[in-house]
Amino acid sequence: MKDLLGGKGANLAEMTRLGLPVPPGFTITTEACRAYLRSGTEPGALRGEVSAHLAELERRTGKRLGIGADPLLVSVRSGAKFSMPGMMDTVLNIGLNDASVRTLAARSGDDRFAWDSYRRLIQMFGKTVLGIDGERFEERLELAVRATGVATDAELNARHVRGLVRQFKDIVRDHTGQDFPQDPRRQLDLAIRAVFDSWNGERARRYRRQEHIPENLGTAVNVVAMVFGNLGPDSGTGVAFTRDPATGHQGVYGDYLPAAQGEDVVSGTRNTVPLADLARLDRRSYDELLRIIAILENHYRDLCDIEFTIERGTLWMLQTRVGKRTPAAAFRIAVQLLDQGLIDADEALRRVSGAQLTQLMFPRFAVDERAERVATGIPASPGAAVGVAVFDSATAAARARAGERVILVRRETNPDDLDGMIAAEGILTSRGGKTSHAAVVARGMGKTCVCGAESLTVDPANGHLTLPDGTVLAEGEVLSIDGTTGHVHRGELPVVPSEVMEYFESGEVGDDDLVQAVHRLITHADAVRRLGVRANADTAEDAARARRFGAEGIGLTRTEHMFLGERRELVERLILAETDAERDAALDALLPLQTADFRELFAAMDGLPLTIRLLDPPLHEFLPDLTDLSVKAALGESDDDRLLTAVRRLHEQNPMLGLRGVRLGLVVPGLFTMQVRAIAEAAAAHRAEGGDPRPEIMIPLVGTVRELELVRADADRVVAEAGAPPIPVGTMIELPRAALTAGEIARAADFFSFGTNDLTQTVWGFSRDDVEASFFAAYLEKGIFPASPFETIDTEGVGTLINTAVTAGRSTRPDLKLGICGEHGGDPTSVHFFHNAGLDYVSCSPFRIPIARLEAGRAAATP
Amino acid sequence: MKDLLGGKGANLAEMTRLGLPVPPGFTITTEACRAYLRSGTEPGALRGEVSAHLAELERRTGKRLGIGADPLLVSVRSGAKFSMPGMMDTVLNIGLNDASVRTLAARSGDDRFAWDSYRRLIQMFGKTVLGIDGERFEERLELAVRATGVATDAELNARHVRGLVRQFKDIVRDHTGQDFPQDPRRQLDLAIRAVFDSWNGERARRYRRQEHIPENLGTAVNVVAMVFGNLGPDSGTGVAFTRDPATGHQGVYGDYLPAAQGEDVVSGTRNTVPLADLARLDRRSYDELLRIIAILENHYRDLCDIEFTIERGTLWMLQTRVGKRTPAAAFRIAVQLLDQGLIDADEALRRVSGAQLTQLMFPRFAVDERAERVATGIPASPGAAVGVAVFDSATAAARARAGERVILVRRETNPDDLDGMIAAEGILTSRGGKTSHAAVVARGMGKTCVCGAESLTVDPANGHLTLPDGTVLAEGEVLSIDGTTGHVHRGELPVVPSEVMEYFESGEVGDDDLVQAVHRLITHADAVRRLGVRANADTAEDAARARRFGAEGIGLTRTEHMFLGERRELVERLILAETDAERDAALDALLPLQTADFRELFAAMDGLPLTIRLLDPPLHEFLPDLTDLSVKAALGESDDDRLLTAVRRLHEQNPMLGLRGVRLGLVVPGLFTMQVRAIAEAAAAHRAEGGDPRPEIMIPLVGTVRELELVRADADRVVAEAGAPPIPVGTMIELPRAALTAGEIARAADFFSFGTNDLTQTVWGFSRDDVEASFFAAYLEKGIFPASPFETIDTEGVGTLINTAVTAGRSTRPDLKLGICGEHGGDPTSVHFFHNAGLDYVSCSPFRIPIARLEAGRAAATP
Repeated sequence: MKDLLGGKGANLAEMTRLGLPVPPGFTITTEACRAYLRSGTEPGALRGEVSAHLAELERRTGKRLGIGADPLLVSVRSGAKFSMPGMMDTVLNIGLNDASVRTLAARSGDDRFAWDSYRRLIQMFGKTVLGIDGERFEERLELAVRATGVATDAELNARHVRGLVRQFKDIVRDHTGQDFPQDPRRQLDLAIRAVFDSWNGERARRYRRQEHIPENLGTAVNVVAMVFGNLGPDSGTGVAFTRDPATGHQGVYGDYLPAAQGEDVVSGTRNTVPLADLARLDRRSYDELLRIIAILENHYRDLCDIEFTIERGTLWMLQTRVGKRTPAAAFRIAVQLLDQGLIDADEALRRVSGAQLTQLMFPRFAVDERAERVATGIPASPGAAVGVAVFDSATAAARARAGERVILVRRETNPDDLDGMIAAEGILTSRGGKTSHAAVVARGMGKTCVCGAESLTVDPANGHLTLPDGTVLAEGEVLSIDGTTGHVHRGELPVVPSEVMEYFESGEVGDDDLVQAVHRLITHADAVRRLGVRANADTAEDAARARRFGAEGIGLTRTEHMFLGERRELVERLILAETDAERDAALDALLPLQTADFRELFAAMDGLPLTIRLLDPPLHEFLPDLTDLSVKAALGESDDDRLLTAVRRLHEQNPMLGLRGVRLGLVVPGLFTMQVRAIAEAAAAHRAEGGDPRPEIMIPLVGTVRELELVRADADRVVAEAGAPPIPVGTMIELPRAALTAGEIARAADFFSFGTNDLTQTVWGFSRDDVEASFFAAYLEKGIFPASPFETIDTEGVGTLINTAVTAGRSTRPDLKLGICGEHGGDPTSVHFFHNAGLDYVSCSPFRIPIARLEAGRAAATP
Repeated sequence: MKDLLGGKGANLAEMTRLGLPVPPGFTITTEACRAYLRSGTEPGALRGEVSAHLAELERRTGKRLGIGADPLLVSVRSGAKFSMPGMMDTVLNIGLNDASVRTLAARSGDDRFAWDSYRRLIQMFGKTVLGIDGERFEERLELAVRATGVATDAELNARHVRGLVRQFKDIVRDHTGQDFPQDPRRQLDLAIRAVFDSWNGERARRYRRQEHIPENLGTAVNVVAMVFGNLGPDSGTGVAFTRDPATGHQGVYGDYLPAAQGEDVVSGTRNTVPLADLARLDRRSYDELLRIIAILENHYRDLCDIEFTIERGTLWMLQTRVGKRTPAAAFRIAVQLLDQGLIDADEALRRVSGAQLTQLMFPRFAVDERAERVATGIPASPGAAVGVAVFDSATAAARARAGERVILVRRETNPDDLDGMIAAEGILTSRGGKTSHAAVVARGMGKTCVCGAESLTVDPANGHLTLPDGTVLAEGEVLSIDGTTGHVHRGELPVVPSEVMEYFESGEVGDDDLVQAVHRLITHADAVRRLGVRANADTAEDAARARRFGAEGIGLTRTEHMFLGERRELVERLILAETDAERDAALDALLPLQTADFRELFAAMDGLPLTIRLLDPPLHEFLPDLTDLSVKAALGESDDDRLLTAVRRLHEQNPMLGLRGVRLGLVVPGLFTMQVRAIAEAAAAHRAEGGDPRPEIMIPLVGTVRELELVRADADRVVAEAGAPPIPVGTMIELPRAALTAGEIARAADFFSFGTNDLTQTVWGFSRDDVEASFFAAYLEKGIFPASPFETIDTEGVGTLINTAVTAGRSTRPDLKLGICGEHGGDPTSVHFFHNAGLDYVSCSPFRIPIARLEAGRAAATP
């Protein structure tokens, strides 16, 4: 019922159904909200329904809204399908007016309580329903505190508060030209409308964009009879968790604040006591709470997060929901519930996520007394980074070149900071959220980033930052920043490796209960998943690691990485060759090197498929940069005319859209032939040693079947000449045209591997190199993307082409093997898409293998 | 029946049906050829059918193949559906052997004729059927001529020829280990097989790729009784055209060669006489020919090209086909046939093409005695270019900078020649065909190009070229090259403008019959076409020309062109702005300039739609080049650090995939707003003067509806603020994602305009700037493309997305207006695609407007 009643409303209804002590009330549906937002007026039927429900509520409580000796007071709270904490409006104490405040005072025997409740109503109502600047009320409250000489407003007495009520009513009249509404029903109707409107408030809209919550859901409104935790020492309010949300360990956790309301806990002006203390203060309520907690855990079969109030010894449940938890807690709890028999193994798997597993695989800071936490920002890109604070990009790059570890500290970053960001261990900013330039670029680079640490004053001009207490930290001060928690520490914190990462590296489970939980859940994921998981690996070392991490093969080996280092010189000779003989000599020299590379890879992946992509990048990537070389030539530091001519000739306006991939193979005679020969000879050599090589040859950047046919014919010939058994030949599907004509391309392909990086680039027409820095932050901020399409597959655009190609390819060749080897292969959300698209495997970087395994299992375990 | 019988066979059958004197024979179908090519052996039924048809032929002629006193001799000729002149094999005189040569001699009374026929059979059969190098036979023939002291082999006497027959038979035995086959039927079967095989010969394959003839059609084989034009003075052979194929003027045109066979005409060793002379030589045959010509024209309702032979006073028709003609002839003939009532106006329109009209619109050389024609190459890119011969790229660029007109002369070009090609008026190469690098790049640039002028010896090292007669032309020699005919002249030819172009410029028809024909056909095209035709024009001058050429509006005005010249400085200020105030000042300065531009355009296009695209290219296009500026900075020639920093920051790896189009509008505050304001204010001003401005605002590079919604909301607001009536807002569909999500994008768009240049770039993943020079020539050569996808729309890839977007867009918004404004808008083939896709209009450069009008008419006139 969450769609209709929102999360809060549905849970209140659920608790009521379970017979738990929930204050009576009713919920106005999200449907009513949507109708209101569409038309701008309350749906006709709404008024009548509110009347009917209110009458029923009055009947059940035996009270009338704002009327009589014991008047009914209600709270009006928002409650969307997805939790949006603090983003929408709430009004408490609806029903109080100049008359009922007196009967409430009489009934409660607490004059101050009654008038303070009325004061709060006028303030909240004025601000959220009538749109009066909250500062107006705060000013008066502050003045009153100062005038009476007390420390906080909690110490104001009944007379003071009555005076404030008068002043607040004046503010309402001054700003709206009308008196504060005395009619309780009118208060209620206006409050409901205000909650509806708050769905489209600026804060709420920004939050939804950040959390990818759809714009059109609308919020429900919960109208609930008020209960008061601030009616003296036998009242109070608290929160409870059915397990420790930080660690997942079993037990009852929470906080209690006697003689207080919920806002008092939130405002932090008074200190809470541990929940266990409630046993001493009010044993009966405590036992009742434990009983309820057990019921709720059994019912929700999960960690519950509970808000309760005790009003003069009576326990009331105000809210419950499945509680948020840390990644470690998520894994432990899922396994505990499985062992308790509350959930089955598929459900346990669904309870954890690849994003959580990612966080468990990063090193983290050890708790260390020596380093003080000086700020907390938004955890934008995980990891633990230590380095000296530097306040500009050029210095960061210079100090990094000199061998120092650097933390780049900026108010916010812009494209001018790229060099510094590349050089830094981590990035810290005082402004901006998860979609800011710093956050987007850092995630793209895999760098630790804490952003929006607003308590820090960054002064780049003077090269220092100021802490809230006025301490000034200059350039060179060591900082430790935690991209997983958002914490910023002064000094160097020791970094401890991740036990979970050690488990994946070693394969040993040991007796750590978190590692055991991870092991059990990922083992179940492997048992149920349909998607294979392969790795993108270019070296035997990476391949071996990937195998330890559970890779069932290599989905992408980029041979260009074998053309770097000392071999660059050979590639240069190949490019500069002016005769067939020169070119052939360069290729002949490369052949044994490539063969040796492949032999190492076959050894590392013995018995498992190894997909080798023939050379993909433009040749000029192996030559010096045009600008650098031109400057050198102009300064007389280089006189290699032949090289400069070649660099100029091969220079491309848009290398991503230039002479690369299969085009190179068709235009540079002998290049692909040499690579295929190296593969065939390496396989033969490995087989001769008793090994089981399983190469697959992959052709990049095919746009039309004719390209593949030509290259394939040559490859098949070379393999046959080498006396090797046939080697499967397939292609990347990474151009829209390849996807659109996949039915034809499948005629010449044994397999497809979707290159989602390039496909995203061409479908959207932006290159990853260029745009993440320039406009992605703005696009995420404006909600144009729900997420970077380079991180999470764009299902509408790129996904449509993938589905088209899968259908067309399989209809030509039912046994066509289908994989994906872009960055998306290790992205949790995207893995589900690939599962549903019917691919055979995903391939991702070695460190993401466990995440892909887990998510592939979750996709299969999702009914 | 052309599919099955091939062009030649179908026409022979047709002439036979018309009762014309065709030598008896039969045709083996293309289906048999295809079956043979698939399986590698003759289809089982073929042998029996050949036997049956041969028996029928023997019955009808009363002769037997190679047997008896008057032996039947046959020719075996290929004949595909599409004419492939000289590309496949022919064998004449099948049926001659050691016995029948003597009876033929006796029967003809011409000993030399009989033995020479046998000599030719062995030579042709040896070369084409048995695969012996033709040189072996030629050598012997030459030796014989030299040994006997005659001038040509035509003067060898019967004894000499008998000797040659012996030697030729020895060659056959030496090379095949077997005697020349004496069995006439075996000769026939082997010859048929050889013709089948010749379909896949190297020459034929290359020709098909160049002419875009499908690979899988196969050829028919025509087996026809021999007739001999070389049986004495009352025999002869000739070709006739029913109209002048050069001009289209009516009358009988052709050549005749007495006492000769077809090969003698082709070899050019003897001079033909005008066909009119035949009236004097053989009145009866001449009259008969005229009668037949009239029958054929009436039957084919078109210019016919006829081959005939007279054997001892008897006229035989050997072949007819619809004749090739020049573009001028095509237009004149179509109108003549229309006036004769042989075809209707739609048919007349279909008889001409946009490609032909294109050629008529180029200036051409006047015939001038002073300039000698020194070579003929392949006409690769039309036009008439005059300049000094230069043999390397650097010199070409230097001389062009010095103000000279240059013809770049190379053996063949490669990417290193780009600078020279850009600098040159025209390009001349001695190697390579229509798909060579020179041809492809020149067409892309719109430069005149003649390539493959093989009689020229180009020596770039010494900077000269040598004519066939040994004359050496050095650098600086003036050449005139004709890209329409392929002619190369020495000296400067006067260039005459095109009358057809003058007609379009002035709108005056005058009394030139070619102009009249063009006028009549394009007027009919306008009457029948469904597609609107608009122009791409950025200035009032271009807009006015486009309007004269028949444009019904502007489909694309690129506002970036308004940011160049003196305004560049303002754009630089905009880009370098560090504060909002600086940026706003730059925008404020641009506003009145943009407004003035639009006012001029509204005046030029008063009453017609004017589609204005907001700024598209990356901002760094308005700044200096990074490499140039870095070199200058290194040399101390520039110390503008701020500029260099901005250039570095805005530098993109792949600007085509960078910060441009709608992204600029969303990231640079106020930029699009300023442009929209300029449009609205210019429209208001034009309207105030009594004008009728019809602006349409077009947003480039949209990938998702959200981008368009945001920009549109701002545009609508600005237009409303300016007090202008609403202006339609639409978008380019130029990214695959836009096409894939067109249904959603249509929610926010009043129109779509397909940007097929960018769409081609992203669908294929190659940029026009980079790849035309680097690998397109190789791709065309290998047959990977049938044509450059930047010239002719790629229907399978790009076309699929266009069709998808049309369907989705119209289903969201049935009144959505759909156009196309890429280069393809003026491409003849592509216009037909756009007609069929259901677009509302095409938009192309002003000079292509007449071509688009004509082709849009042809598309509509095609049933």
